[in-house]
Amino acid sequence: MTHAGWGDPARRKGLPDAADSWLEKTVGRGQRSVPAPVAALPPTRLGADQLAALRGTGAEVDLSDEARVAKAAGRSYLDLLALRSGSFDVPDAVVRPSADQIDGVLGTGVTVVPFGGGTSVVGGVAPRGGPVVALDLCRLDRLIALSEEDRTATLEPGLTGPAAEALLNARGWTLGHFPQSFEHATIGGFAATRSAGQASTGYGRFDALVVAMTVETPAGRLELGGPPTAAGPSLLQLFLGSEGAFGVITSVTVKIRPLPEVRRYDAWLVPSWEDGIRQLRELEQGGVLPEVARLSDVDETSTQLRIAAPKAVQLLARGRCLMVLGWEGTAASVKRRRQRMKGIPLPGAGEKWEHGRYDGPYLRDDLMDAGYLVETLETSAPWSRLPTVWGAVRAALREALGECVVMCHVSHLYPHGASLYFTVLASADRDWAPAKRAATDALVVTGATITHHHAVGIDHAPWMTAEVGPLGVELLRAVKQVVDPAGVLNPGKLIP
Amino acid sequence: MTHAGWGDPARRKGLPDAADSWLEKTVGRGQRSVPAPVAALPPTRLGADQLAALRGTGAEVDLSDEARVAKAAGRSYLDLLALRSGSFDVPDAVVRPSADQIDGVLGTGVTVVPFGGGTSVVGGVAPRGGPVVALDLCRLDRLIALSEEDRTATLEPGLTGPAAEALLNARGWTLGHFPQSFEHATIGGFAATRSAGQASTGYGRFDALVVAMTVETPAGRLELGGPPTAAGPSLLQLFLGSEGAFGVITSVTVKIRPLPEVRRYDAWLVPSWEDGIRQLRELEQGGVLPEVARLSDVDETSTQLRIAAPKAVQLLARGRCLMVLGWEGTAASVKRRRQRMKGIPLPGAGEKWEHGRYDGPYLRDDLMDAGYLVETLETSAPWSRLPTVWGAVRAALREALGECVVMCHVSHLYPHGASLYFTVLASADRDWAPAKRAATDALVVTGATITHHHAVGIDHAPWMTAEVGPLGVELLRAVKQVVDPAGVLNPGKLIP
Repeated sequence: MTHAGWGDPARRKGLPDAADSWLEKTVGRGQRSVPAPVAALPPTRLGADQLAALRGTGAEVDLSDEARVAKAAGRSYLDLLALRSGSFDVPDAVVRPSADQIDGVLGTGVTVVPFGGGTSVVGGVAPRGGPVVALDLCRLDRLIALSEEDRTATLEPGLTGPAAEALLNARGWTLGHFPQSFEHATIGGFAATRSAGQASTGYGRFDALVVAMTVETPAGRLELGGPPTAAGPSLLQLFLGSEGAFGVITSVTVKIRPLPEVRRYDAWLVPSWEDGIRQLRELEQGGVLPEVARLSDVDETSTQLRIAAPKAVQLLARGRCLMVLGWEGTAASVKRRRQRMKGIPLPGAGEKWEHGRYDGPYLRDDLMDAGYLVETLETSAPWSRLPTVWGAVRAALREALGECVVMCHVSHLYPHGASLYFTVLASADRDWAPAKRAATDALVVTGATITHHHAVGIDHAPWMTAEVGPLGVELLRAVKQVVDPAGVLNPGKLIP
Repeated sequence: MTHAGWGDPARRKGLPDAADSWLEKTVGRGQRSVPAPVAALPPTRLGADQLAALRGTGAEVDLSDEARVAKAAGRSYLDLLALRSGSFDVPDAVVRPSADQIDGVLGTGVTVVPFGGGTSVVGGVAPRGGPVVALDLCRLDRLIALSEEDRTATLEPGLTGPAAEALLNARGWTLGHFPQSFEHATIGGFAATRSAGQASTGYGRFDALVVAMTVETPAGRLELGGPPTAAGPSLLQLFLGSEGAFGVITSVTVKIRPLPEVRRYDAWLVPSWEDGIRQLRELEQGGVLPEVARLSDVDETSTQLRIAAPKAVQLLARGRCLMVLGWEGTAASVKRRRQRMKGIPLPGAGEKWEHGRYDGPYLRDDLMDAGYLVETLETSAPWSRLPTVWGAVRAALREALGECVVMCHVSHLYPHGASLYFTVLASADRDWAPAKRAATDALVVTGATITHHHAVGIDHAPWMTAEVGPLGVELLRAVKQVVDPAGVLNPGKLIP
């Protein structure tokens, strides 16, 4: 991953001129941001004894500038601004253990940030406290076991999405977990953050795919999960979403499914946002689940089509909403489930969405180059409250940012609710932090969750008391005290 | 519920003579157990100040013998032996709060056993420590809210299964949770024990049906759950299965489904246990879920048919296994999903199973009257390990009990495994405790869970360290310390 942007810069396509000029007119162009060269890093703060202890575990200890910069931050808009400006914190070293060296590393008492793909957009991998090392899990990249009979696979945490899929696909199976960060994010990160992928409506959220996990903590190893059980509270569910603050996930056993014979991605223009939401709700509650379901509001529909569609389609879409449904599985299952929505079909638009599904972060780099603020936030709420939440977040963002484009789509359907995913465009001269605070306050007030799949990290921690209550926070602290009494695991994350 | 047996004694049908004589020949008749009249109870150990404090909350405080005996024990075989013998512990009072009196009762500092239907078969409601009161939640019996749009209902914990269903059915909805204890068990108990019902293959385990809960603890109130979220670990999943040891559940928001238009219960004889397991696995993994799925092994099949079927069917069944599949839903959905298993259809046998689905505990009373030991235990395991677990538990029970009948069925299907439910018949002169210990040890050794849906209570607590590890137990203790620092909630349960 390039140090101040996303993935492989060669894959960037550039911001289309028409979009650029429309944005300039609509929200105003701000300061063009140009990645600064990386200055000399501060020397490591690790003492000789700490370095010796870390090296004594047998793990690779990398003090190079390149390695430290690569593990300095996640990939939120504010992370990217900091990385581009050259003003950011770095870990004091990058440590790369093998699986059996992790308890040794934790035994040194050095503060660690467990590090997978580094794609957090909530400050989840920021180096805090000090000295602190990035615990890079890239060497834990094996498929440990696969049971065709039980339809489970045990994966190591450092496997990226594509690496895990390649191992499974080679044997005819898939995990079906495809978040936008898929190309770089890792199995461990998915589990640590309760990730939800673009196809999670069909395959299930990552926390629903996990059957068992092994976690190393300073207090010892935990073997969590297993067959369905009534043997007390679910401790597995206490470590899913623990964001490296309760332990280092060292293996994840997941449900797998046969590779789909067939993939069909369809798109329509539906009459309105309200009508589209109702259609999705009836689909989900009727038990006919597509693997992927997305419904863009009017502003997202018109903005997306402005970039990608011919004028005639843009005119046709005026006031309407774009819906994409993706169906994957056996030919028979797709044939049986695939439904025609009530609306105007847009041939080819579904496949186009599928084809570009991982490209959003590249476009963000282009937008930042051109002088625009671009950021996302997401939530979920009961079906009955989606319109209220949608309205409150839009109002909060517009109030805070002034001229801006706020786009939203529904995705991730559940019988009792769905997620809302907002994308915001404004001039780069606008300040994101107060807008984010106002939007999150609006989520709390309307009873929506502060995050449906981006996790807590540093950015959402101030709202955790509102989310789980003061006693809930106390419970999280008590759990952390048991597994991490010295507080060496990912400080500053999750718990306010 | 009658004090030393199940439900309404008028519903008992008596043990058929043929079954009685076969059992006498096969396992030997032991001491016939006759319920002793209840002797005078020991006086309450509650001090005048404690009684005054409890009464000061406004809750009903009942010191009558009748009330105390009714809340003395659950309904395991050993509970029933104790109740029949007249030698059992009783709570020092029964306290019946309204919803808003519960925090007051907890504020008195008196030890409480939260009490729903009292159907625990693992000692979950046994009065331990002292003085101790049964906190009878029967007054919390309202449907608080129902959202047709979100398909959720908020129920109070004291509602029994039939009472909850009646409230939902009247508006066209069902919860779909039908454990064998359905007629007496309560919503709060289902949540506190991670209950699984006979139709949980289709409707989902109770912990999968719960969307949110309110829990009162001595340290304050917790509002748990809500829309799907990535905001840290699931604290909801930490209180599902907390068995009254972490707090008193005061409301439960559950997913609801439309009342089924159609119910179809089919039965077949399949060629073998292994073949039946394979058929069920392929059904589940193929995504065609029946609401109810049960497969009896050869011994359960022959024993059940011996009691209930004509001789010709018994001969036909020799060496074969009985399978029951229940399909519920819209006519279209049932028509689409309903599958013919590879085997010999047994017309009427599916409906017969459905008709008698709550009668097992009555037959147990008859068997005990006649001098037989009768008890059940249950587990779950990955599909690939079911045969090993099945063999190990049978061997352990036979070794411990000598002459006995061990029956088993598969139920509760998951993509990655299924549950096994064992029923044991022996002479009442045999000792159950060592047999249960041996069987549970066999579960641990073969990697199966110590309980799939009966929960932990007192009986399984000694195996919790094996189930979740010493660090897992330490986490449970830390959680309890936060919410119940004085240890007044259901002492002796869950945590070893």
